[in-house]
Amino acid sequence: MVVATNGSPLEQYNDTKIPLSNLSYNSIVSVDRGDPVGFSTFWEKLREEAKVEIKGDEVMSYFGDANLCWYMLPQMRNAILRLHKVVGNANTEDKYIVLGNGSSEVYLALLYALSTEKPSDIPINVVAAAPHYSDYEGATDMLQSKLFQWSGDASVYDKDEPYIEVVTSPNNPDGALRTPVVKSDAEGKVIYDLAYYWPQYTPINHELNQDIMLFTFSKCTGHAGSRIGWALVKDIEIAKKMVKFLHLSSIGVSKESQVRATKIIEVICDGYQNSNSTPSDRLFFNYSKKLMKDRWEKLKAAIEKSKVFTLPKYPTAYCHFTKEITEQYPAFAWLKSVEGIEDGESYLEKLKILTRGGKQFGVDPTYVRISMIGTDDEFIELVTRLANAKIE
Amino acid sequence: MVVATNGSPLEQYNDTKIPLSNLSYNSIVSVDRGDPVGFSTFWEKLREEAKVEIKGDEVMSYFGDANLCWYMLPQMRNAILRLHKVVGNANTEDKYIVLGNGSSEVYLALLYALSTEKPSDIPINVVAAAPHYSDYEGATDMLQSKLFQWSGDASVYDKDEPYIEVVTSPNNPDGALRTPVVKSDAEGKVIYDLAYYWPQYTPINHELNQDIMLFTFSKCTGHAGSRIGWALVKDIEIAKKMVKFLHLSSIGVSKESQVRATKIIEVICDGYQNSNSTPSDRLFFNYSKKLMKDRWEKLKAAIEKSKVFTLPKYPTAYCHFTKEITEQYPAFAWLKSVEGIEDGESYLEKLKILTRGGKQFGVDPTYVRISMIGTDDEFIELVTRLANAKIE
Repeated sequence: MVVATNGSPLEQYNDTKIPLSNLSYNSIVSVDRGDPVGFSTFWEKLREEAKVEIKGDEVMSYFGDANLCWYMLPQMRNAILRLHKVVGNANTEDKYIVLGNGSSEVYLALLYALSTEKPSDIPINVVAAAPHYSDYEGATDMLQSKLFQWSGDASVYDKDEPYIEVVTSPNNPDGALRTPVVKSDAEGKVIYDLAYYWPQYTPINHELNQDIMLFTFSKCTGHAGSRIGWALVKDIEIAKKMVKFLHLSSIGVSKESQVRATKIIEVICDGYQNSNSTPSDRLFFNYSKKLMKDRWEKLKAAIEKSKVFTLPKYPTAYCHFTKEITEQYPAFAWLKSVEGIEDGESYLEKLKILTRGGKQFGVDPTYVRISMIGTDDEFIELVTRLANAKIE
Repeated sequence: MVVATNGSPLEQYNDTKIPLSNLSYNSIVSVDRGDPVGFSTFWEKLREEAKVEIKGDEVMSYFGDANLCWYMLPQMRNAILRLHKVVGNANTEDKYIVLGNGSSEVYLALLYALSTEKPSDIPINVVAAAPHYSDYEGATDMLQSKLFQWSGDASVYDKDEPYIEVVTSPNNPDGALRTPVVKSDAEGKVIYDLAYYWPQYTPINHELNQDIMLFTFSKCTGHAGSRIGWALVKDIEIAKKMVKFLHLSSIGVSKESQVRATKIIEVICDGYQNSNSTPSDRLFFNYSKKLMKDRWEKLKAAIEKSKVFTLPKYPTAYCHFTKEITEQYPAFAWLKSVEGIEDGESYLEKLKILTRGGKQFGVDPTYVRISMIGTDDEFIELVTRLANAKIE
């Protein structure tokens, strides 16, 4: 077996085997990716309670259910409905659930479903306000589809052509709460990417009820390895086209992941529905919100000490889920370099901190994105280095 | 929650909840799809031995390994290598394994990786000799990519343009053993789709060593619900592009499925590596080959009795795995209607047998494809009806 050891564009992933519990001053701290393994400390405590068993002959079929999303297990559907009900972040009534292999695949299914298939038509323009998620462009344009094309920053979109606006709220990378910004009179459709609309990141102050809402299990519970994403979709024709896409793209979604995601969601919901008898540190969103709050306090202190970067200001709001007025604790910190630093990513690279620079999010390189949801060791080393950073 | 009850193009799946153990003469027998649940009788016997447990905090990361296919677990790679070694169907030396959500996603990754991205280029032509798998066309053209396009039957391809030929061997739908057929002098690339090159279906008489070989877990062990497919790829640049596709399409592959597929493969291989002490009905390929042989004998008898259809003739060959001269027992039967029946699918629909007609495979409607790998009850009812079929 040949193994790629160097020269690969995937080398960025080659550091995943660094023993992060032994980070030294000379180690590289990778906070460029949003791998949500920081929440694993919670799941370690509930490892037995949240365990699943799958026997040799179980879930062997392509099929899961006799309904529209035919590859979805009924218990997966029920778990998703229950989770939204418990958290109160999205209204599931009169909506179809379309499941995918992560929200990435559901995103592509949505682009397919929202575009027209007449060969005479021009591709529909896909836009998102900058700074926007770094993979929208790559995913949209990868296959050079005649159905849709990436058209950049939604805030400057002025074509008189149909468009799809992706509204990520809270936003990746900067945590901002967003609404659509396109001013065009052309026919527009909106995808709400609500990957981060969970109580650990932001106050849940509305039960959203949009026509198309996209969610991912990865950023909700931290189980990114399961590749479970879903959309809540009002229009049956859109839902059907999405299911057709999922059929041709991957013939549905792993049943093992569905079994596992169902269990994890049930454990979370059981905790809240018996919350009088459940200690707070065994309630997932309480635990994960506290973790995010602690990290944000440490990060803010480090940033304030070094004065090399500034952070966005976030509003506070009442959270219907936690029943308190609370701040936002985004999954990513969005740092702006002070004057004198032209390229935040390069600056931090010298401190052996790997980040993702502004250019990848459609803005200038003075910005950098830092993951707040990695391992504890990584995070502690990050704030130590940031606190000691100086302008050269 | 709204549920699609009628008028849906997905209604075809609505029969999945028919209690198949109680099939009556009036029930619909669905043998149009290749859901390999017939092998579940084997896995029922090994349900505890082949069980996996996944604890709450396990496999949470996006990452699996520090190698090229960064989302693949090391144990998944080892299991795939071991399986090919035990069966002897494919040479894995000097090849990269690229994992996908079923071979459908790996197929798309291959089209992406084998096409060029220069906007000036014309799309590369994708062809397969008819009759060919019914979903190649749909998957290839779904997004109307400028990179590749479906160009139909490989045996009549005569363009002077670059092409990709998909060689499915044994073939779906007709079980034929195949080699490339395109005669063009243009630059051609070949994908060997070896979904059915396993001992229960066909003698393993060569250890294939092609540059690009595609496999699926579904048709190998019967675990279609896991959505695990892989390619063995010789060229590192192709493998890298495939991994890039997998990243943007679904950020890799379910870790739960990988854990489960690993276990299933280990149980199969352990059986053969301790075959002196393992009873034959607990050896997967022995059991599944016997099942296919029994079914084919029953089907042939029924077809011979009714004289409404004919079947292809298959050669016998020496199988290095079973160490015997053996026939083929394809996963699908490919029936040709006798004179007087213009449309085999419609003819069988009157007998309440749902099949997939020749047109979907690029040939005329006198042909129909019938799954041989569904449930026992379904199969028995199928052969009963076929035996009693008459020309009207």
